[in-house]
Amino acid sequence: MLSRIALSSRAAPARLQLFRAPRLSPFYQRLLTTPSAPVPPPPPPPRGRFVRIARTTVRFAAFASFSAVLGVVVLTGGIFVHDAFTYTDRHINRVPVSPLALRPERGGPKNLPIASDLVGDQEDENKLNLHGKPKLVIVGGGWGAVSALQSIHPGEYHVIVVSPDTFTTFTPLLPSAAVGTVSIRSLIEPLRKIIARLHGHLINARAVDLVMSERLLEVEAISATGEKHNIYVPYDKLVIAVGSVSSTHGVPGLEHCFQLKTVGDAQGIRRRILENFETASLPTCSPEERKRLLSFVICGGGPTGVETAAEIYDLCQEDIINYYPKLCREEVTIHVIQSREHILNTYSEAISKYAEEKFRRDEVDLITSARVVAVHPDRVVYSVQDPETGKVVNHSVPTNFVLWSTGIAMNPFTARVSDLLPNQVHKKAIEVDAQLRVKGAPLGDVYAIGDCSTIETSVVSHLLELVDEADRNKDGKIDFDEWKIMVQQIKKKIPMAESHVEEVRQLFDLYDSDADNSLTLNELAVLLQEIGNKITSLPATAQVAAQQGKYLGKKLHLLAAKHDNLLANELPPTTDEAVSPPFRYTHLGSLAYIGNAAVFDLGRLSFMGGLVAMYAWRSVYWSEQVSMRTRALLMIDWVVRGVWGRDLSKL
Amino acid sequence: MLSRIALSSRAAPARLQLFRAPRLSPFYQRLLTTPSAPVPPPPPPPRGRFVRIARTTVRFAAFASFSAVLGVVVLTGGIFVHDAFTYTDRHINRVPVSPLALRPERGGPKNLPIASDLVGDQEDENKLNLHGKPKLVIVGGGWGAVSALQSIHPGEYHVIVVSPDTFTTFTPLLPSAAVGTVSIRSLIEPLRKIIARLHGHLINARAVDLVMSERLLEVEAISATGEKHNIYVPYDKLVIAVGSVSSTHGVPGLEHCFQLKTVGDAQGIRRRILENFETASLPTCSPEERKRLLSFVICGGGPTGVETAAEIYDLCQEDIINYYPKLCREEVTIHVIQSREHILNTYSEAISKYAEEKFRRDEVDLITSARVVAVHPDRVVYSVQDPETGKVVNHSVPTNFVLWSTGIAMNPFTARVSDLLPNQVHKKAIEVDAQLRVKGAPLGDVYAIGDCSTIETSVVSHLLELVDEADRNKDGKIDFDEWKIMVQQIKKKIPMAESHVEEVRQLFDLYDSDADNSLTLNELAVLLQEIGNKITSLPATAQVAAQQGKYLGKKLHLLAAKHDNLLANELPPTTDEAVSPPFRYTHLGSLAYIGNAAVFDLGRLSFMGGLVAMYAWRSVYWSEQVSMRTRALLMIDWVVRGVWGRDLSKL
Repeated sequence: MLSRIALSSRAAPARLQLFRAPRLSPFYQRLLTTPSAPVPPPPPPPRGRFVRIARTTVRFAAFASFSAVLGVVVLTGGIFVHDAFTYTDRHINRVPVSPLALRPERGGPKNLPIASDLVGDQEDENKLNLHGKPKLVIVGGGWGAVSALQSIHPGEYHVIVVSPDTFTTFTPLLPSAAVGTVSIRSLIEPLRKIIARLHGHLINARAVDLVMSERLLEVEAISATGEKHNIYVPYDKLVIAVGSVSSTHGVPGLEHCFQLKTVGDAQGIRRRILENFETASLPTCSPEERKRLLSFVICGGGPTGVETAAEIYDLCQEDIINYYPKLCREEVTIHVIQSREHILNTYSEAISKYAEEKFRRDEVDLITSARVVAVHPDRVVYSVQDPETGKVVNHSVPTNFVLWSTGIAMNPFTARVSDLLPNQVHKKAIEVDAQLRVKGAPLGDVYAIGDCSTIETSVVSHLLELVDEADRNKDGKIDFDEWKIMVQQIKKKIPMAESHVEEVRQLFDLYDSDADNSLTLNELAVLLQEIGNKITSLPATAQVAAQQGKYLGKKLHLLAAKHDNLLANELPPTTDEAVSPPFRYTHLGSLAYIGNAAVFDLGRLSFMGGLVAMYAWRSVYWSEQVSMRTRALLMIDWVVRGVWGRDLSKL
Repeated sequence: MLSRIALSSRAAPARLQLFRAPRLSPFYQRLLTTPSAPVPPPPPPPRGRFVRIARTTVRFAAFASFSAVLGVVVLTGGIFVHDAFTYTDRHINRVPVSPLALRPERGGPKNLPIASDLVGDQEDENKLNLHGKPKLVIVGGGWGAVSALQSIHPGEYHVIVVSPDTFTTFTPLLPSAAVGTVSIRSLIEPLRKIIARLHGHLINARAVDLVMSERLLEVEAISATGEKHNIYVPYDKLVIAVGSVSSTHGVPGLEHCFQLKTVGDAQGIRRRILENFETASLPTCSPEERKRLLSFVICGGGPTGVETAAEIYDLCQEDIINYYPKLCREEVTIHVIQSREHILNTYSEAISKYAEEKFRRDEVDLITSARVVAVHPDRVVYSVQDPETGKVVNHSVPTNFVLWSTGIAMNPFTARVSDLLPNQVHKKAIEVDAQLRVKGAPLGDVYAIGDCSTIETSVVSHLLELVDEADRNKDGKIDFDEWKIMVQQIKKKIPMAESHVEEVRQLFDLYDSDADNSLTLNELAVLLQEIGNKITSLPATAQVAAQQGKYLGKKLHLLAAKHDNLLANELPPTTDEAVSPPFRYTHLGSLAYIGNAAVFDLGRLSFMGGLVAMYAWRSVYWSEQVSMRTRALLMIDWVVRGVWGRDLSKL
């Protein structure tokens, strides 16, 4: 068919020839054409308008299907032709390698091998050009790391990524992957493909320690025989983006719980859920055991917990019901244990209510204002306060599936870095300044982004600098004009304090307790302390990490691009302030899938609803993918689920 | 765009209106139209023919891309609309369940629970209608089992499938999945989806024993806490289709080898291969260790071994080369150890040669006429005979990846069944008659198909029956006319002997040693014995299993359909011969992928070549998929690989 189009168009007159050419099969001809010329036109049908609309619809449907089929054929054909050219004979011989890369020298405090040269460093022009460029080492492969990698320009840094995983994960869709709505492989993109743009390197290892004085990162690599080999990776700039682990909140028995932070977790959950259904279908399963197997408990009513509950409900409604004994669907119970009064408590109240209402309709058991006391292999124990007597009562839910999705804590490397620096006192993360530099580390050497970091909120710790800069008349007091200068300084140093110093006059009057139109150091200290207390830390979300990574990547690019310029101005090339304003977070909104419906919290605006919201939710996640590849895979997954349902293979 | 088409077509005159309607973007307008009417036509270009061809090509390309995009949009849109309707509120309450299904009675020799009623048996009309139908239990979920399931008609049997896996696997593409050319999930289809057509049941358990006298199959199910629970599954007809395990050939150290029989194996291989490349890229890796990590050894030169070697080569050529240090590509070595003189030795000689030539060009190391002596954690030892001295010399290949793909052996259940029946003497499989009934089991109760079974080839064991039927004049001798009758009987009983009794006269004369124009019993015994020796057993391939499953499924359908008819004719309804001829294998040819090329052995015809053959190879496998779902997934995988390469994530 296609070749005929190409041939005939040569002879036919211009304009519409391309569209006329396809010799349609009789079926399509009948659908597409009105009766041919010699036959007199049929008398106008009695219900002309209706018939016309119907005919148009049929024609449109025919055209649409024809286009669809033709399109798919052309696209597939095209790709197969392309495919043919990917099978090429390429031979590689004698790759130049530095001897130091094959046998690294030893050094540093622990006398470990130092990876100053890498095996691929001399293999081509692009890599050779990076010789002598600053070594940028990024630890981690999540949202922060990847955003930074995507914002750096090729040729500016000798980039090394250190990550125990070889891929980056699109974490927000892990709950979908955990029940097979999307495929796990659609959420991951190999780090090597992302790094390739920068001609960088991946070291598949875990960061364990840091020697800041010698700019050496200690990493632990596992050999093929399972032994641990530690080496030093030298850096000029280090970016720590290692994420976090789940907080235990001191609850015993968390080893019986699943978490949902990695694709490995999602795989495990998927296997367990299907295992539970298979075991519940066995003739050996007692009714009590069946109830326990089909009881799914989720600890934590945040977005991850809520979405997982919703996805499990979807799985039961759409697939389990069709292929497993119906008794197994009937006996499913889903429990969400939340410590606060409402689920999705960081979202607007309307959204919380909407989600709770939806879950009630779906018969998802919401247990709010409850604390998990312990997790046992066969049950979860939680406590609630009796509303009448006020006494705390323990309850127990038999289950074979518990998801723990509440709070974050430091991973071992973050904890180690925090220990190395005496002024790091935050318990859950590394404290960084507004430029995302790790506080206490040599200035401009070490940055931290994402879940493993938190931006300092203490304004009062800058008291002396602030006074020094604002006290123009050097009288040791701050009058209102000087206070206005100080407010500008505060906004620059701690952008997160901005909304708390808006009312310049009122604040000044409020804290000017002796009403002498000036603030003493004591009055200032109280004022700044209280401003600091009002600042809430940024949440540990993908959105924050991605924005921080992008900010840092851009800054690193500017530092590299303005390197000579900065030197000429006698500023050290590490002066971040010279090239970039402090990091500023723009909240674009939160969203969550709640089972055949979705909710959006866009700050002042909330949006919630059924299918339309669900498609909006999908669109947002779709557009945020790291690569066109995962975008295509994700779209395919949704289509495949729509047509054939989820894959129920217990793999 | 689409809605505009629909609207405008109502007003426009018939015929081509649908194609005129789309208001193309200026880009497409420029591509698609010749200059508009008022402008005088441009003078004929100097190289008119060339320009016309070029213009046609551009137009065609524009039309094709337009169709492709439109098609994909329409298709995706359509599926999303469909999708919207899959989210329905369905509630299930009070599913009727037999008390016996909840608390099964005990019985049988081991006093185990007997699964006479299942939990889903009363849940709907379709299931209720199967009450009282013969219970058909199929053990296994591979090629044989699935082909049988697809050939049985719904409503004829109460079907129970017993399988430790919940899915069926398209085994021929496992080598592709092992390197990520196709995704592992594209090769599997949930058994529950296949069984749903028959309103059957899946018991996710392992068959361990058989009580033929009471028609009870003993299965071992694993509870959620990991305990083993054994139960009896009663059957009227039992089909054993459990496949085989790999033969060890007595080689020590096979625990260090991978096999390639399941998707789990493919996952493990994929992980190991990428692990080897990651570890080889580490700065801690010594040059010797790197060589060992990048040495891939395949024991067995049959299709699985050859295809795996080819796929590993492809992976290196197309993906590793782009994203890993080039040194890692340079140092890859692939070794195929084959005991025979040639690889693919069951294929035609031309094909063997072609494949060997291709491998030599690709620098794949072919080690033929070699025996593997032992596999160690870090190396494979093999022996070859020195062609000059004739002495057997041992060699050793350092490696961190060994695939063992040679020969088959009985799995524990097959071995148990074989032990139960005294006349089962075959060492590698259960012997069945030409009707695929297990020899020695109650007639018509137990069938075996696929790799776990072998059709008897002994003609001489039928000597007395044959003489009884053929010796018309009852003189204890067989004259030529009687011999012709006997040949017909042999063909009927042992169809595989057919080609060996073609030359009726010659055979008769050859064995009629005293030339008295009749064969004595002794002469006959020798003759039949030697015919039997000439028969080669059917190979343990998917093709044989699938044909056997289809044959058996059809026969079971006929037995059910003709049940009343058979009873009226006073034949027991189990008389297979009454409804079906013996099984007859039709070899459709063998094929193998050898890396950017493929070979086909179609009996007398051989076909081998590059891309065209590769696409033919893909087409064959594509058309043989169990479901449209896996067909679509497979096509998508090939397209995704073509566009973005393999996923290099070590998962």
